[in-house]
Amino acid sequence: MEKDKNVLEIPYGTRDFLPSEAADKRAIETKLAELFAEWGYEEVVTPTIEYLDNLTLGSSVSLQDHLFKLFDRDNRTLALRHEMTTPIARLVSSRLKDYPLPMKLSYISSVFRQEQTQMGRQCEFHQAGVELMGSTSAFADAEILALAIQGLLRSGLKDFQICLGQVEFLNGIMEQYQLPAEAKDKLKAAMEQRNLVELETLVDQLGLSDNAKAVLKKLPLLNGGEAMLKSAYDLALNEQSRRALDNLSEIYRLLKSYGVEQYVRFDLGIIRDFSYYTGMVFEAYTPGLGFPLCGGGRYDHLLSDFGNACPATGFGMGIERILLALERQGLEKPKRARNIYLSYAAGKEAQAVERARVLRQEGKTVELALTPQDKAEAVKMQQAKGYAELVYLA
Amino acid sequence: MEKDKNVLEIPYGTRDFLPSEAADKRAIETKLAELFAEWGYEEVVTPTIEYLDNLTLGSSVSLQDHLFKLFDRDNRTLALRHEMTTPIARLVSSRLKDYPLPMKLSYISSVFRQEQTQMGRQCEFHQAGVELMGSTSAFADAEILALAIQGLLRSGLKDFQICLGQVEFLNGIMEQYQLPAEAKDKLKAAMEQRNLVELETLVDQLGLSDNAKAVLKKLPLLNGGEAMLKSAYDLALNEQSRRALDNLSEIYRLLKSYGVEQYVRFDLGIIRDFSYYTGMVFEAYTPGLGFPLCGGGRYDHLLSDFGNACPATGFGMGIERILLALERQGLEKPKRARNIYLSYAAGKEAQAVERARVLRQEGKTVELALTPQDKAEAVKMQQAKGYAELVYLA
Repeated sequence: MEKDKNVLEIPYGTRDFLPSEAADKRAIETKLAELFAEWGYEEVVTPTIEYLDNLTLGSSVSLQDHLFKLFDRDNRTLALRHEMTTPIARLVSSRLKDYPLPMKLSYISSVFRQEQTQMGRQCEFHQAGVELMGSTSAFADAEILALAIQGLLRSGLKDFQICLGQVEFLNGIMEQYQLPAEAKDKLKAAMEQRNLVELETLVDQLGLSDNAKAVLKKLPLLNGGEAMLKSAYDLALNEQSRRALDNLSEIYRLLKSYGVEQYVRFDLGIIRDFSYYTGMVFEAYTPGLGFPLCGGGRYDHLLSDFGNACPATGFGMGIERILLALERQGLEKPKRARNIYLSYAAGKEAQAVERARVLRQEGKTVELALTPQDKAEAVKMQQAKGYAELVYLA
Repeated sequence: MEKDKNVLEIPYGTRDFLPSEAADKRAIETKLAELFAEWGYEEVVTPTIEYLDNLTLGSSVSLQDHLFKLFDRDNRTLALRHEMTTPIARLVSSRLKDYPLPMKLSYISSVFRQEQTQMGRQCEFHQAGVELMGSTSAFADAEILALAIQGLLRSGLKDFQICLGQVEFLNGIMEQYQLPAEAKDKLKAAMEQRNLVELETLVDQLGLSDNAKAVLKKLPLLNGGEAMLKSAYDLALNEQSRRALDNLSEIYRLLKSYGVEQYVRFDLGIIRDFSYYTGMVFEAYTPGLGFPLCGGGRYDHLLSDFGNACPATGFGMGIERILLALERQGLEKPKRARNIYLSYAAGKEAQAVERARVLRQEGKTVELALTPQDKAEAVKMQQAKGYAELVYLA
């Protein structure tokens, strides 16, 4: 029946979480909420809908096409939030303006992007993250990285890598060869897409010295450990790119205090897909997943778009991506136990209610049967519903 | 500056939760999630956006005007979900169709209604609730009521009342006087709005016997305890209305096993604002709040609109309304403690990082300063940020 088929559909790029999937999601979100709180990050909640103009303040123009738009009763354009950094920048610049700095905030929210779906990234997906406002210190960036690493560990992941870059390194390199703005944008786009052929073609068209060409073509290959970082100083001919490398060295030194440097390698070609980043940027990858679990960086100018000059750094992690990685890597997802199915013979409802109360008070999960059953039925139901134990009142 | 003012605005009927508000919200949601799990209710998550036609399947036509609508790329009309019962009915009729019945599901979600805001009810608000599918038993309705009561208690409320009705009682009464469909709708609308003057005017226009008029005018006044319920049998002249009263008597008897009957009184004039209800219906009220904290009931036909004939009962509670009631009644809202502000003199970063790690492992909430401070600065910051204790590494 055509009608019946339609009524069961959900929109492109959305999904339901069945009970076991929703339990995994809640378990991870609860663990992350606890972690963020332990580190002194306070949760905030912002509206799902914002004014389109506000959401796109810090973002590249192309992003606008990927927002779910709607209209309010005065015909102003609204959109579903596509990330949380901009709404939190707005909040910090309005009702939290007098809060003592540095301010450490966290969120766990759904966000929306109208684009081609991919594994682990639907049009509606869930993010957990933190924003640290009011500090330019490398220690702030190190805390953000250490907390992202703890978040992935707390979620149950073991094998992952943080790729750490600095947008001012790239900007400095392009500056030192005095590339025109249009060329810069094209080069960045090619690097963001990891399109090396396109990058080489673009570089060859720019009429640069052989040395300059060689340096620009090398950018996407600049990844590795401390030795690579040291060698990158040879390419950095101006203050801007050198300072970016100094910043990364300092962050790395601090990550050693956290004992998490083994999770971090440098990737100086990283370009994140939001144009508001101004300093260190990073992405976390895990084997078998071709997209980042987590990403973030420093964005020192976004808040001034909201009239509140204030440096900031932070990250967001994708809940569905973490769940997918755990699944693919066969790792344990911490779930609440289903302890007891409580069933009873006719006339025993009142005793069953009382027994359920006592067992639940002891911390047990108890599903109470809704009609009297014989014991064979009760056993069948206990098993079908996946309860560890049957309590039967005869 | 006009621009700066605009960028800080949020759409009509939306709100931000500042850190203390978001902490209250998370604490209550976590408590409710635990409670629902203890009772064997499994959480599900559905998309924020659904096809408009699906969302309005079980609802009255007037509701359509109150949905936030948007369009997908094929120009099909989508809407932000306005409640969770219909999406869960869809899910149960599709991917959960082979799940063993009865099925006990829960949700904690934001929902959206484009209407005049009121205290405790914005255009976007948050609901926690349960749906129990696959049982017609009065014991199922009693479990739903007992769980709603436990939910309000677990949230920290002490003083509230469940008003319990049965839509078949009203339907039976209107049937016994053979009222035309249009008159029924008007009477129900007047009762829903508690507009007694309108109700009396309508009844007087219907050309009924004096006795019938008296009964219909009495409907909104039929509230009280068991004695009122008994006396209502005198008005019930057909099987339909008598069976509704029998059902309420049976539910009340079962609520006594739960020891929660003191929270319940009957209100036979209750009309809930969704037309899908088919049996018992209820609303929870608390002093000083002119709108229900929680509402629900039995809806035995909604799932057949999704091609899956299956009886069901459930409730939803308003998180913002519970928070408002706790606030107004001066009741404790359980929050995570902010234990330690950890600060340090220059050169002590590494020790500070290690100390923070140890303290957090002990379960403490620790905010780490991001730059060295002298002790006076550290004390000032600890106090400004509301931490109970300062740990200072000199």
